[in-house]
Amino acid sequence: MSEYTPLESLGEFGLIRRLQENLENTQPSTVVGIGDDAAVLEPGQKQIVVSTDMLVENVHFDLTFCPLKHLGYKAVAVNVSDIAAMNAIPTQIVVSLAIGARYTVEAMEELYAGMRLACENYKVDLVGGDTTASRGGLVISITALGEVEKGKAVLRSTAQVNDLICVTGDLGGAYLGLQLLEREKQAYLADPETQPELEGKDYVVGRQLRPEARMDVIHELRELGVHPTAMIDISDGLGSELLHICSQSRVGANIYQDKLPADQQTLETAEEFKLDPVTCILNGGEDYELLFTVKMADYEKIRNHPDITIIGNITDAGEGVKLVTPSGNAFPIKAQGWNHFG
Amino acid sequence: MSEYTPLESLGEFGLIRRLQENLENTQPSTVVGIGDDAAVLEPGQKQIVVSTDMLVENVHFDLTFCPLKHLGYKAVAVNVSDIAAMNAIPTQIVVSLAIGARYTVEAMEELYAGMRLACENYKVDLVGGDTTASRGGLVISITALGEVEKGKAVLRSTAQVNDLICVTGDLGGAYLGLQLLEREKQAYLADPETQPELEGKDYVVGRQLRPEARMDVIHELRELGVHPTAMIDISDGLGSELLHICSQSRVGANIYQDKLPADQQTLETAEEFKLDPVTCILNGGEDYELLFTVKMADYEKIRNHPDITIIGNITDAGEGVKLVTPSGNAFPIKAQGWNHFG
Repeated sequence: MSEYTPLESLGEFGLIRRLQENLENTQPSTVVGIGDDAAVLEPGQKQIVVSTDMLVENVHFDLTFCPLKHLGYKAVAVNVSDIAAMNAIPTQIVVSLAIGARYTVEAMEELYAGMRLACENYKVDLVGGDTTASRGGLVISITALGEVEKGKAVLRSTAQVNDLICVTGDLGGAYLGLQLLEREKQAYLADPETQPELEGKDYVVGRQLRPEARMDVIHELRELGVHPTAMIDISDGLGSELLHICSQSRVGANIYQDKLPADQQTLETAEEFKLDPVTCILNGGEDYELLFTVKMADYEKIRNHPDITIIGNITDAGEGVKLVTPSGNAFPIKAQGWNHFG
Repeated sequence: MSEYTPLESLGEFGLIRRLQENLENTQPSTVVGIGDDAAVLEPGQKQIVVSTDMLVENVHFDLTFCPLKHLGYKAVAVNVSDIAAMNAIPTQIVVSLAIGARYTVEAMEELYAGMRLACENYKVDLVGGDTTASRGGLVISITALGEVEKGKAVLRSTAQVNDLICVTGDLGGAYLGLQLLEREKQAYLADPETQPELEGKDYVVGRQLRPEARMDVIHELRELGVHPTAMIDISDGLGSELLHICSQSRVGANIYQDKLPADQQTLETAEEFKLDPVTCILNGGEDYELLFTVKMADYEKIRNHPDITIIGNITDAGEGVKLVTPSGNAFPIKAQGWNHFG
């Protein structure tokens, strides 16, 4: 094991120097990056959006099957996803890590490699952070900042009756990827000679291990001249997020079961696990797609967009929030978001 | 125990609602506070400073002797201290918590009560966060934002030869407070009937449990028309922070042992523990005072300030960073900052 460097051999300052060397800032608003008591930013006339997300070992991720580089990428992507959900452009992140004693310097470099790759892809500067020990597992806390033209931020609370309800991409994949990975972990624990059976499952496994924030759709909506009336990212599940929009906007909604977008591999994997695919699509979390509403007048602009599906419409608050089946029955949608305390 | 509410009875959303109800925003730059994917801020012509600090149970705090309300206050204060050290005014924070299973709703309300009090005292808006479970202890990650006029942020890297070196308040108290609390903890563990012997030790215990960020000095320096040339807050210890300023500014420094400010209770407690008081002052962390440099020309403006002590001067890089004893001997200062991985 002599090729691994224990954390205590570098110390706190040494580790920080190692992880953060050669960080380059590319955002015009970054005036002072990492290395002082605080970073200095200059957004000019723009508004700033700020969001924070924490990932905790064995609550949000399991290093048995989650490579550290993917984890680093995901930790950044889920924060960028919150910035996207405000219709803003991500610009900077600060990263705090609490690191358990069993981690090596090389493991932290892998994690940082994933974070750097995500920073490159999303054009975000890593401008600060804190690195400390943990008596337990790894904790990753990231705060992301973004910029948006004054008055252009899109909230959860501004959906209007008759707006169209849209989602990006497809849903349920990340949840079924997790089921697969958990199954293979159990098989491995029962018999370490077992080879993982993940062939033909790249898509759903990838959805779980390395989600992308839908910044592409944010840029495309701007090009199409479509300004969403309300927006949220789907981290807890479509049903739960739709309820957030409806309660904060004081409206109801109908969404149509036969419009809900799912990948073929998601449907096949649900069948394999004898899970109801509609439940997986509605309540499976972590797809990090966007749920948003647009005015009816924007229908023509988005109807043929390959990454956007119109799944329903906003109704009066009195109508409730409902799933309409192909046979025309309507069932109320209930919150099924993750409860980590359960 | 029926008066305590287990976390799982409220669930994640319920807990967040309970902790964050009635939060009021007072900063003009807060456009949208808590409750959406991200907060929206509008700093106008000002620059933004951003800093983040993580507190981990049994690494940074010990709940045996640290009341949760004080901990909440301290978690905000140490972040505000970083903003102060940039010569900026704190405006917003976002708070992420990972909460172990043994915590109750009431315990988290205590923690939040301390954070709210700090937000009131420092005039900071709590505009967002994330709350999740932890498989281990409590982790508190706070990111603080502040505002500063363009070009007025004070970095670590801009001290100049011949500048005066100043510190606020007094040093070493927080470290000796920790020694006392650790001693009483051991006594209690050995014999739970023991009464803690903390009489006459309010000052040093208070320095450890409830430090204040020196925003008062930031405001007073502005009123005096004194613009520090470099600044850092003293979280790891005077010696370590002075080395940061000197290495980042590429200068040396002499500080004078007989100028180092300490409270009488600090000196007495050091003697009681048979610790060298100079070592406690130089290497004891967590006082959250400010270490800064000013031009010689500002001497008259600050020499009689009751909360500022001039402890030395900046020299050429070749001179090194030294402590000068009353007898005129000079010893190089070495980094003795906390290493949580040690």
